[in-house]
Amino acid sequence: MPKVKVYVTLKPGILDPQGATVAKALKSLGFRDVEDVRIGKFIELYMSDVEEDEIPQQVEEMCRKLLANPVIENYSFEIEK
Amino acid sequence: MPKVKVYVTLKPGILDPQGATVAKALKSLGFRDVEDVRIGKFIELYMSDVEEDEIPQQVEEMCRKLLANPVIENYSFEIEK
Repeated sequence: MPKVKVYVTLKPGILDPQGATVAKALKSLGFRDVEDVRIGKFIELYMSDVEEDEIPQQVEEMCRKLLANPVIENYSFEIEK
Repeated sequence: MPKVKVYVTLKPGILDPQGATVAKALKSLGFRDVEDVRIGKFIELYMSDVEEDEIPQQVEEMCRKLLANPVIENYSFEIEK
């Protein structure tokens, strides 16, 4: 079954309060070398009965329609066979 | 500034209601080939003033202490120079 790994990240410049909180928590745990943290989503899709060459187009559409908010997020994906 | 990409995923067998909801939504949008969806975290760490060979050990410790819950989640990471 083909597996697709989708990475959704906030665009540069978009505030990431969750990341800022994690950066602060890491520093207070003693990890003083951490400068910045950005938190995104890592989505694994398992697909069946699909022509392999249709996957990129389908996943692109899924990202635009549901998985990412293209106004504030970037996305990329990798297909594993 | 070295950048570390951390992937946090739910262990196999752990229920993922968020993933199940996304799978259902994708199907109702017409993506009928989607069998299963698992949602994890994609964390980007920007580090400074750190010896490169210390990074793996530090990130491993960050994952165990804060970024992942080792009871229900797996983690892996990649270091970009």
